Amino acid sequence: MLNVRPFAIEADAAQRGAALRRQVREGYQGPTNTPDALDLVQGNLVVLPHADAAEFLLYCQRNPRPCPLLAVTEPGAYEVPSLGHGIDLRTDLPRYRVWRHGELVDQPTDVRALWRDDFVAFVIGCSFSFEWALLVEGIPLRHVALGRNVAMHRTDIPTERAGRFAGPLVVTMRPLTAADAIRAVQITSRFPAVHGAPVHLGDPSLIGISDLAHPDYGDAVDVMPDEIPVFWACGVTPQAALAAARPALCITHAPGSMLITDLRNHQLATL
Amino acid sequence: MLNVRPFAIEADAAQRGAALRRQVREGYQGPTNTPDALDLVQGNLVVLPHADAAEFLLYCQRNPRPCPLLAVTEPGAYEVPSLGHGIDLRTDLPRYRVWRHGELVDQPTDVRALWRDDFVAFVIGCSFSFEWALLVEGIPLRHVALGRNVAMHRTDIPTERAGRFAGPLVVTMRPLTAADAIRAVQITSRFPAVHGAPVHLGDPSLIGISDLAHPDYGDAVDVMPDEIPVFWACGVTPQAALAAARPALCITHAPGSMLITDLRNHQLATL
Repeated sequence: MLNVRPFAIEADAAQRGAALRRQVREGYQGPTNTPDALDLVQGNLVVLPHADAAEFLLYCQRNPRPCPLLAVTEPGAYEVPSLGHGIDLRTDLPRYRVWRHGELVDQPTDVRALWRDDFVAFVIGCSFSFEWALLVEGIPLRHVALGRNVAMHRTDIPTERAGRFAGPLVVTMRPLTAADAIRAVQITSRFPAVHGAPVHLGDPSLIGISDLAHPDYGDAVDVMPDEIPVFWACGVTPQAALAAARPALCITHAPGSMLITDLRNHQLATL
Repeated sequence: MLNVRPFAIEADAAQRGAALRRQVREGYQGPTNTPDALDLVQGNLVVLPHADAAEFLLYCQRNPRPCPLLAVTEPGAYEVPSLGHGIDLRTDLPRYRVWRHGELVDQPTDVRALWRDDFVAFVIGCSFSFEWALLVEGIPLRHVALGRNVAMHRTDIPTERAGRFAGPLVVTMRPLTAADAIRAVQITSRFPAVHGAPVHLGDPSLIGISDLAHPDYGDAVDVMPDEIPVFWACGVTPQAALAAARPALCITHAPGSMLITDLRNHQLATL
């Protein structure tokens, strides 16, 4: 049956996605970017009461580079059939963060007890997908080689406000040779659903970053003399906007603890 | 000043966009796809009261191929600075359609008297942009050569429902040789903001179209023996969903009577 969903779920990927989510439900609490999950699309999660959801949806619509939406649920629904069979958003992430009035109050492994009939869930594209695309094309990523988190920096680039949601664009930084940077622009341009092309490269001070050795989130990596820093819009941007908006209640994924879907990264490529 | 808006407005395009909109305000009532506007991005318009807007926004989010959003306004705003300087959505389209409970009740040239503080406007990408891309790449389009409207057909492909908004995908059809069809896939894949790649090519019956000689909207064109029909998602899809949802009040553009922006089509290309 043809439909207008951009992506069809492949049977093999559905089996693997389901198996990985089952491991999480049964207690796995590590990071989700394990080798056996590398080719599957993973998502950032934001859950808000319906009263806040429309404004946040507009914020995402206005800021598609940092907030590329993969799915938005109906109020109360915790399944996401467009992203995978049998997904349960309440149990299928290794760890969640619970925020009340902008303050982090808990980091549970299951949010069934908190779930409400008016919750709307947003699944936002994640840079793991375009990193997969870079790695399979032979672009080396230093933070991956070193087993570190990617370096993230707040910029002085404002996002487009939507009601209470606003704040600076947060970017990830990956050092690349010029040839790899040019190729990385070409490759990631194919993936607008997971942040797309870089937003900046070269001098970090031009976007308000004073010190690459001290990222605001994640881990620093060296930039070698023959390399330039390349910056992509980052999914931490909406978390910063949420922290500023201070909604009464919000649930997100914990860093590195993503939703594993049944989609394969290559399906997100526009070309 | 860097910002996260995907597109910067060029001074020359802003002057031309403003001059064309001024002609409309001063009484021009013809179609907007005139030669002097060919390289400027044009948009479909949908205006809804705030109470209906969140659901329609979700419908667009779930159906990005037929409903690619270029901008969504704050309630009451009739300017759209991200698309052009000095745009007035109440006066700058040659003709509007006013719908009450799904019925077409008026086709005015100005909607200032109807405008309300709770109106939210949606500007949706239009196939004029990707037709420009095809024409400048030397892909001939028969309906353009014949001075006709493009042929549009309702399919049996359902869109993704969002509340009351649902309905079949409507597609445009352009007959192309196989070589041109392949090239057209490559070219339009670069323009996801204006419907992107085709949704189908070849046998029309596979998507529920019984007779290419009798389109549901627009004008028929012949398909020559060495050509195949190529189908793209169409901006009439949301109008069909609006007709089905029957909101108490809705304002849209009249067919062919679009909003001319200050953006240039080539700026919408992802690659």
